Amino acid sequence: MTDQNSHPHPKHLIDVAPLSTALEKFAIDRDWTQFHSPKNLVMALSGEVGELTEIFQWMTEAQSLTAGANPETSLAVKDELADVQIYLVRLAAVLGVDLNAAVQDKLQKNAERYPADKVRGSNKKYTER
Amino acid sequence: MTDQNSHPHPKHLIDVAPLSTALEKFAIDRDWTQFHSPKNLVMALSGEVGELTEIFQWMTEAQSLTAGANPETSLAVKDELADVQIYLVRLAAVLGVDLNAAVQDKLQKNAERYPADKVRGSNKKYTER
Amino acid sequence: MTDQNSHPHPKHLIDVAPLSTALEKFAIDRDWTQFHSPKNLVMALSGEVGELTEIFQWMTEAQSLTAGANPETSLAVKDELADVQIYLVRLAAVLGVDLNAAVQDKLQKNAERYPADKVRGSNKKYTER
Amino acid sequence: MTDQNSHPHPKHLIDVAPLSTALEKFAIDRDWTQFHSPKNLVMALSGEVGELTEIFQWMTEAQSLTAGANPETSLAVKDELADVQIYLVRLAAVLGVDLNAAVQDKLQKNAERYPADKVRGSNKKYTER
Repeated sequence: MTDQNSHPHPKHLIDVAPLSTALEKFAIDRDWTQFHSPKNLVMALSGEVGELTEIFQWMTEAQSLTAGANPETSLAVKDELADVQIYLVRLAAVLGVDLNAAVQDKLQKNAERYPADKVRGSNKKYTER
Repeated sequence: MTDQNSHPHPKHLIDVAPLSTALEKFAIDRDWTQFHSPKNLVMALSGEVGELTEIFQWMTEAQSLTAGANPETSLAVKDELADVQIYLVRLAAVLGVDLNAAVQDKLQKNAERYPADKVRGSNKKYTER
Repeated sequence: MTDQNSHPHPKHLIDVAPLSTALEKFAIDRDWTQFHSPKNLVMALSGEVGELTEIFQWMTEAQSLTAGANPETSLAVKDELADVQIYLVRLAAVLGVDLNAAVQDKLQKNAERYPADKVRGSNKKYTER
Repeated sequence: MTDQNSHPHPKHLIDVAPLSTALEKFAIDRDWTQFHSPKNLVMALSGEVGELTEIFQWMTEAQSLTAGANPETSLAVKDELADVQIYLVRLAAVLGVDLNAAVQDKLQKNAERYPADKVRGSNKKYTER
């Protein structure tokens, strides 16, 4: 699934290469690459998003906006966001996907699919996303 | 929840700043910032991980390793990985979380929690992660 | 969303009424009905499925088949399955959905969508489900 | 993981036996039991919860309370609730878990963990659940 060279003029939107390298070394050092199939990593990613969800489930939207004011909540949120990012980068690595190129393609699609002048202020179109 | 300056010697593991800026502009142009509460964005992130999960649910682990061989599957996977990355960066932005610092902290914790010589080859300790 | 009477000849597939009543009382006794919006309950359901996912994420499929052999795992699995069932019934209740009727309709749709003689042994069609 | 007889005085909270039987027949008729490992079914369950989440992600809590007023949304919600119930029952079946007993045990635990007079009106304790 390697597509590192598929973009003739790749725009730099994200760079996750140093993290990807660090995670591969971490896994090799522990002989954990055997557990890192895409199927397993998708489940691990999903589990971490579940933990993130639990933090916000009983908050109102307004409360969620100031979730960082409580130091304990803030720390938990950072921890879970990091876990999601970590598993996402590891998953992309084992699948050979260039996350930056994938994101660039998706932004392009979204710009075509949701023209600003047509969807302004509507969560209807948004919902269809 | 801003913690951009909490790391005296921040290591560069990921850089998501250009994507974060692009996503904020995308939302402002469509007057969608009103929908981007952390609570809503966590749900959107979770929904995208659900779509990613559906791609892999009936595959064996071995099949998941070569998921990229099928062009249709490969495209779907890239699309969903991008969506997860996009919502994660947007969520971190509205929460004021520096993803790079959060990831750095988490790697540090993981290194302490899973010493290579103690957990090598074990998915037991791993499961406890 | 009440549809208790929409099925002229409802088949009994599941009965969740006693649990639904017990959960409503539990919430009222604690003044928790204020937190039980469908949006919040969907998140709670999602969080519990995340915990269930974490139990199985590093297992092979073969290992998952005998997950009950380990008493600790078995207990954790029962706990999470119960949580998922509890939030699902509570969610259906606040939405006024008759789960039995909904399940009956879905089985009917699935039978039409996946004729046994056309999809036998294939996880391709299944994947498209 | 069979525990059908572990409750000396089982209370009837839910009955999912007819659905469980119907789902097993559905899978056998299509030779799909080979795909129904607990690991795969947890992913399928998770994917369906993801679809349910997507319906509610941009709604306010107030909007989610009247989600059934829109016929299209109402139909989608019933469909996804049914899918979640279906995969949950199928998963419990392949694991040999008696959902009614599991739910009964969990309600007992919850009653002990959240005494009504101690947690009334608080989503703090609730969050810790």
